[in-house]
Amino acid sequence: MKLNNDQNSGLNMSRRIRRTPFTDKVEEYGVKGFTVVNHMLLPKAFSTSVEEDYWHLKKHVQIWDVSCQRQVQISGPDAELLVQKMTPRLITEMKVGQCFYIPLIDENAGMINDPVLLKIDRNIYWLSIADSDVLLWAKGLALGFDLKVNIIEPKIYPLAIQGPKSEKLMISIFGSNISNIKFFHFDYFDFLGEKQLIARSGYSKQDGFEVYFSGFEKGSDLWDEIFKAGKEFNLLPACPNLIERIEGGLLSYGNEFNRENNPYECNLGPFCSQNNDFDYIGKRALLKIKNEGVNKKIRGILFDGGPCPPCAKPFPVFSRDGIQIGQITSGIHSPKYNKNVGLAMISKNCWNAGTEVDVHTSDGKKRKGKISSLPFSKTI
Amino acid sequence: MKLNNDQNSGLNMSRRIRRTPFTDKVEEYGVKGFTVVNHMLLPKAFSTSVEEDYWHLKKHVQIWDVSCQRQVQISGPDAELLVQKMTPRLITEMKVGQCFYIPLIDENAGMINDPVLLKIDRNIYWLSIADSDVLLWAKGLALGFDLKVNIIEPKIYPLAIQGPKSEKLMISIFGSNISNIKFFHFDYFDFLGEKQLIARSGYSKQDGFEVYFSGFEKGSDLWDEIFKAGKEFNLLPACPNLIERIEGGLLSYGNEFNRENNPYECNLGPFCSQNNDFDYIGKRALLKIKNEGVNKKIRGILFDGGPCPPCAKPFPVFSRDGIQIGQITSGIHSPKYNKNVGLAMISKNCWNAGTEVDVHTSDGKKRKGKISSLPFSKTI
Repeated sequence: MKLNNDQNSGLNMSRRIRRTPFTDKVEEYGVKGFTVVNHMLLPKAFSTSVEEDYWHLKKHVQIWDVSCQRQVQISGPDAELLVQKMTPRLITEMKVGQCFYIPLIDENAGMINDPVLLKIDRNIYWLSIADSDVLLWAKGLALGFDLKVNIIEPKIYPLAIQGPKSEKLMISIFGSNISNIKFFHFDYFDFLGEKQLIARSGYSKQDGFEVYFSGFEKGSDLWDEIFKAGKEFNLLPACPNLIERIEGGLLSYGNEFNRENNPYECNLGPFCSQNNDFDYIGKRALLKIKNEGVNKKIRGILFDGGPCPPCAKPFPVFSRDGIQIGQITSGIHSPKYNKNVGLAMISKNCWNAGTEVDVHTSDGKKRKGKISSLPFSKTI
Repeated sequence: MKLNNDQNSGLNMSRRIRRTPFTDKVEEYGVKGFTVVNHMLLPKAFSTSVEEDYWHLKKHVQIWDVSCQRQVQISGPDAELLVQKMTPRLITEMKVGQCFYIPLIDENAGMINDPVLLKIDRNIYWLSIADSDVLLWAKGLALGFDLKVNIIEPKIYPLAIQGPKSEKLMISIFGSNISNIKFFHFDYFDFLGEKQLIARSGYSKQDGFEVYFSGFEKGSDLWDEIFKAGKEFNLLPACPNLIERIEGGLLSYGNEFNRENNPYECNLGPFCSQNNDFDYIGKRALLKIKNEGVNKKIRGILFDGGPCPPCAKPFPVFSRDGIQIGQITSGIHSPKYNKNVGLAMISKNCWNAGTEVDVHTSDGKKRKGKISSLPFSKTI
């Protein structure tokens, strides 16, 4: 299926919305829709339903074109200094080969992004970003603070292999050393004579790897190689799965939170270092918020009334006495719980697990719901 | 037509891809597709074809939801200083009520964006931006240079009224003072008791206005009011028209140029001040480029072979002796010229108007073409 400027495709294509090394293959394998992240295409559906994909992801292995997780490479003598300025998570102890999930905040402690930071070398870092132009933020800071860094978007295109059979599949292609990669670490493997960075990470809770693919023009070769090897593992082309992501409490920048929210509201306190001996942008604001506490937090909600409609517009959430206490920003029916699951920023007075709420979905239904901690499995 | 997370819509909706004050109406009026600009929906098609829209735009009047032209508001004692740092166009003489088209460049003179700058008050500017997070760039610079500014994205949602009958339509709603707004100037008009900024500007060459709408929840009221008044002027809902834009030589950031290009390559020399007495980021790099001259420039191409396919992937352009000299990044069939028109960054040796080239379109055809200056009407 070619989704060009076809009026039926919904999304109009142009150079501005960048293709990836895998887009040709993704089209060949029947992609049914895209979204746009970081000015780049992210496949959102193939021929199977979100629910079929969900069960498949939990049993087998999938290939996801997540090239839109663009890298911002910061290198040079002041690289560590700049990265540390950008995050309240202490990075000085980080080792080459490690990945850190880090909140990036502004001077008001508002969330700029929540990337995975990779330490490539002593003075080279990659920020594997969610949907905002972190490169412009980093460049602005570097110029203003007169830091000795070079900031680029390298030609690196992440391809995720996710699911319980991902290790076996990856071994069959890259060899048994794949097993030595610990969670949130990376190492290098050869593909067609080029060194490829592979990390044990991904936007699911089903185990998996991300190939930080270098070599745009060989993208189809990598895809084909993985498919050939994937046959015996029941590999399917897919994309981050909304049901699995919500059940697992994985957040999405721009959906669950944005620049108006601080890390504590987003449950990212554990990624803000307790150590106060280092400096970063927004430190004063963040410490004040930490001391005073927050008035709302991202929570899960389980709600009834049959499968909810797509959460294209947030669903307002009300306390049982009719006060709006938040909104569901991602929501879908969960076959595991046989209820709908949602993620919502919820006011303090109602955020305790078990609190009863009402959810107003876009189909006009008022549905009974209950607050849950995250991930959902902790509560249920 | 509701384009939710429907697999047929191509584009998956979520809070991350923000709706506008007019999205409900746009859906009610039969939108057939969207694209994403600045993390916000931009309608791309209604029930009429691009060609029908083109003729209609040149004869009548259209309403476009261009809320995705987000505003970056820079205010405070150092506002002028920061804006001037960001652009090689001298802004110190600018008057309140004026709009300036300005290139924003980085330290290498690479294009960050090409917004319209509005001087709202002595220390308040809006940058009405193309598709990149200028807010993060401006905030990074402000923090690093320790400038006394406040930078926000105000709740302002541009709605464009474009076409030769736009003045008559606007007068019928906002009164005869509309006629006093000169091109690239703005003034304030009342709507339902709120002051609305209206500029004479827009992304077409057919005359028009942009309402910088404030008051999200009254968006449908404004839309309805304009439609009521628009009946006698044959008003249609539409969007920036690809044929008219290319014929008029209007560029699109991310399509025709990006951070790898400098203003001179983009024909934006006239927007870089000759006066060298002021300072801005990238000045040294830009002056060097100006002195040395550039090796490629954006040019028009007229090409044969019947209507070309959608330009979802750029079309490579070759000299008659088979050397690639550029690529068409926006292209479509022009009913006016009865040929295809395209915009392309073209190497110096071939950029003269009249140079014969070959265009390889994605349908496998090799088409004969000719370089044109921009806008096309200048050549033909």
